[in-house]
Amino acid sequence: MELGPPPGGAGPAEPGPRLRGLRGDDRAASAAWLSEASAGRRAPSVAAVLPAGGSGERMGVPTPKQFCPVLERPLISYTLQALERVCWIKDIVVAVTGENMEVMKGIVQRYQHKRISLVEAGVTRHRSIFNGLKALAEDQPNSKLCKPEVVIIHDAVRPFVEEDVLLKVAIAAKEHGAAGAIRPLVSTVISPSADGCLDHSLDRASHRASEMPQAFLFDVIYEAYQQCSDYDLEFGTECLQLALKYCHTKAKLVEGSPDLWKVTYKRDLYAAESIIKERISQQICILMDAKEDEEHVGRCLEEMLKKELNHVKVTSGALCHAGRDLQQIILEQCYNFVCVNVMTSDFEETRKLLNALEESNLSILYPVVVISVHFLDYKLVPFGQKMEHLMQIKEFAKEVKKRNILLCGLLVYYPQYFHRMGPLERTSPISGVTKTKPWRGPRVKRR
Amino acid sequence: MELGPPPGGAGPAEPGPRLRGLRGDDRAASAAWLSEASAGRRAPSVAAVLPAGGSGERMGVPTPKQFCPVLERPLISYTLQALERVCWIKDIVVAVTGENMEVMKGIVQRYQHKRISLVEAGVTRHRSIFNGLKALAEDQPNSKLCKPEVVIIHDAVRPFVEEDVLLKVAIAAKEHGAAGAIRPLVSTVISPSADGCLDHSLDRASHRASEMPQAFLFDVIYEAYQQCSDYDLEFGTECLQLALKYCHTKAKLVEGSPDLWKVTYKRDLYAAESIIKERISQQICILMDAKEDEEHVGRCLEEMLKKELNHVKVTSGALCHAGRDLQQIILEQCYNFVCVNVMTSDFEETRKLLNALEESNLSILYPVVVISVHFLDYKLVPFGQKMEHLMQIKEFAKEVKKRNILLCGLLVYYPQYFHRMGPLERTSPISGVTKTKPWRGPRVKRR
Repeated sequence: MELGPPPGGAGPAEPGPRLRGLRGDDRAASAAWLSEASAGRRAPSVAAVLPAGGSGERMGVPTPKQFCPVLERPLISYTLQALERVCWIKDIVVAVTGENMEVMKGIVQRYQHKRISLVEAGVTRHRSIFNGLKALAEDQPNSKLCKPEVVIIHDAVRPFVEEDVLLKVAIAAKEHGAAGAIRPLVSTVISPSADGCLDHSLDRASHRASEMPQAFLFDVIYEAYQQCSDYDLEFGTECLQLALKYCHTKAKLVEGSPDLWKVTYKRDLYAAESIIKERISQQICILMDAKEDEEHVGRCLEEMLKKELNHVKVTSGALCHAGRDLQQIILEQCYNFVCVNVMTSDFEETRKLLNALEESNLSILYPVVVISVHFLDYKLVPFGQKMEHLMQIKEFAKEVKKRNILLCGLLVYYPQYFHRMGPLERTSPISGVTKTKPWRGPRVKRR
Repeated sequence: MELGPPPGGAGPAEPGPRLRGLRGDDRAASAAWLSEASAGRRAPSVAAVLPAGGSGERMGVPTPKQFCPVLERPLISYTLQALERVCWIKDIVVAVTGENMEVMKGIVQRYQHKRISLVEAGVTRHRSIFNGLKALAEDQPNSKLCKPEVVIIHDAVRPFVEEDVLLKVAIAAKEHGAAGAIRPLVSTVISPSADGCLDHSLDRASHRASEMPQAFLFDVIYEAYQQCSDYDLEFGTECLQLALKYCHTKAKLVEGSPDLWKVTYKRDLYAAESIIKERISQQICILMDAKEDEEHVGRCLEEMLKKELNHVKVTSGALCHAGRDLQQIILEQCYNFVCVNVMTSDFEETRKLLNALEESNLSILYPVVVISVHFLDYKLVPFGQKMEHLMQIKEFAKEVKKRNILLCGLLVYYPQYFHRMGPLERTSPISGVTKTKPWRGPRVKRR
């Protein structure tokens, strides 16, 4: 079954390849490949097959690991996003078990994944991959997909795969017929004897861990699967070995980065969550409804944030003036916004920002954090009255949380003559929304 | 050099073995071992050697991974704590490079580690272990340590080792001469040919990853190290292999738990941090300065916390009445305290709690979170005045943070007739301390 792209949605695809780490010959080959691909002529067609039928028993949780939530989004959705970003992968075939088919369809729809086809998984990994390949083979009666020249096989539980390694294995597969990513061994590998004692240990330097992605000339791997025995399909796991055994194709081995690791245990979910949090916390956008040259406590806040937040980009400008900039920032996938309200005491600016974010569909991918900052001179305004007014933000917060936007109100309660006392000493979050960022909020030293 | 236990400090040692996961024969053997150990007669003496001279180049950070901070405490300190908790391990010899010797001494002192001896690491892992063994051998002139019957070798970067697997390998080593923990392979292992192509892949079912801890009869492994070649010492990593090659001792292999994993990459530090956070967040203690049967908004808070915090133990009682209970709770290593102040508007109760915590040295091991809750009826007390008063807590917070206690003030600003409005709707943290717990604070629905 083929799922078409949803109508009109801004999806997770990202233009242009990221090719860091390619050098010399690799780079020349990549350049040729990409120029062919971008010119649309003679470009080798590439598809990907993702076996996602595993039960995840090593995770120790009832949900199969590919469906486990990471920041409330299923792991497999991150992997699909990583593949979709690569414009030269034309089709992505995902093999899921019958019982998870509806779940998977829901994920594809919710996260607006594109170029995805779902097939039924087999009872083993090899059978699932074979089913995926069958859907791509032209000899199948109901297949709407085109047979690719090269097919990439990847795991649903390796969400951090980068375009450069995908390109490397695809290029190597075109040349050698088969290719796979490898990594150094973390532990020594041993062979036990029948009585549970050490028989011998393997030389660590002359062995490698076989990781994913792997890539093959489609005809090679399809031929191998058609010829291989039931024993292979039941008990084997290594596609490179099938290509060797049945098509005498010696796979080219490509050194992969540590990012290729497979989410296997619960601790790996923790690690994945931390890595994603770190990635989406790298950039903060500040929007201020005051002119650049105005002196105000809001400007102090901005200065302080700039000082505190090392290695993050801080952008400022009122929303009405910064509309185009804001669109650019959203396109660049910034997930953190501080909306500083100096001129107004209402939520118009914040509401405009929330609208822009909702229209962009940015929050489909990751939670977006918006902090709406308001100022209150406690010598002029009764606290209770202001609070009543600001409590509205709690309602906003509830509403936008459904769309994965975490809105947090910050009331800066200060005396007008703030030179005498430190500003921002009295802060009052008026929303119960939990911050999920490593960013620790404005911390201000007394002057 | 031998570092004695520091005078008087409450250290991280924990009495009694945790033997979950042992069954049948194992349990019988363990029981015999432990009864011998506790009776103090014929107990096989056990020491541990920890090579900690690695540079951690795979981590991609300049600090060697064993010294990387996890919740601000170096990773190796967690591993030492895990070994120290095991009362039948008499000595722990740690091999560190000359340049890290002072750092390591500082860690031993700061975290009050006991039974630790430091030796200089060699340039390779095997040489470091050999140096550790030499310090334990009686034939060395300046050694103050006693030669053990069994020696456990463990890695500094495997902090989650449990007593049960230590016991299993120690018992197996006594019987077989050598033993080591193993785990199933996560990836298929392959052998590359000289031209960087696949030569063959190994059958995953008939191989295992060799993990730590391993244990040996001291005489076996010391003999093996004395006999082994320079090539072994330079390029080998597997102690079990040395015992096999030079002493013909076939190691018994023991299935280990996933906890045995080695912190290798940056993602592993993230995972370690999350696991530790989860462990120390399992229990919360609530202290309230009101009688059990009193109706008050503070009691509502308690009820709500009990409802919200699944799977955590909630203990309540005023500090003056609960002194003995509190001591017990601290002994059980609870790291989360909510101090609810109903009767008083000062910080006496919170201060008492902080004193008790500081005296206990609990916060040496992990950060302790204390939330001091105060109530304010905004119809009776001017907000500013109350705030002035409560701002003192910021000073406390700064002071106790130096001792790893994270103090957070929570002002509940509510009308006396809170039946009409939800209580706790207006909360005002008055400290900038970041909460590091997954616990998300009281969330209250309107009634």
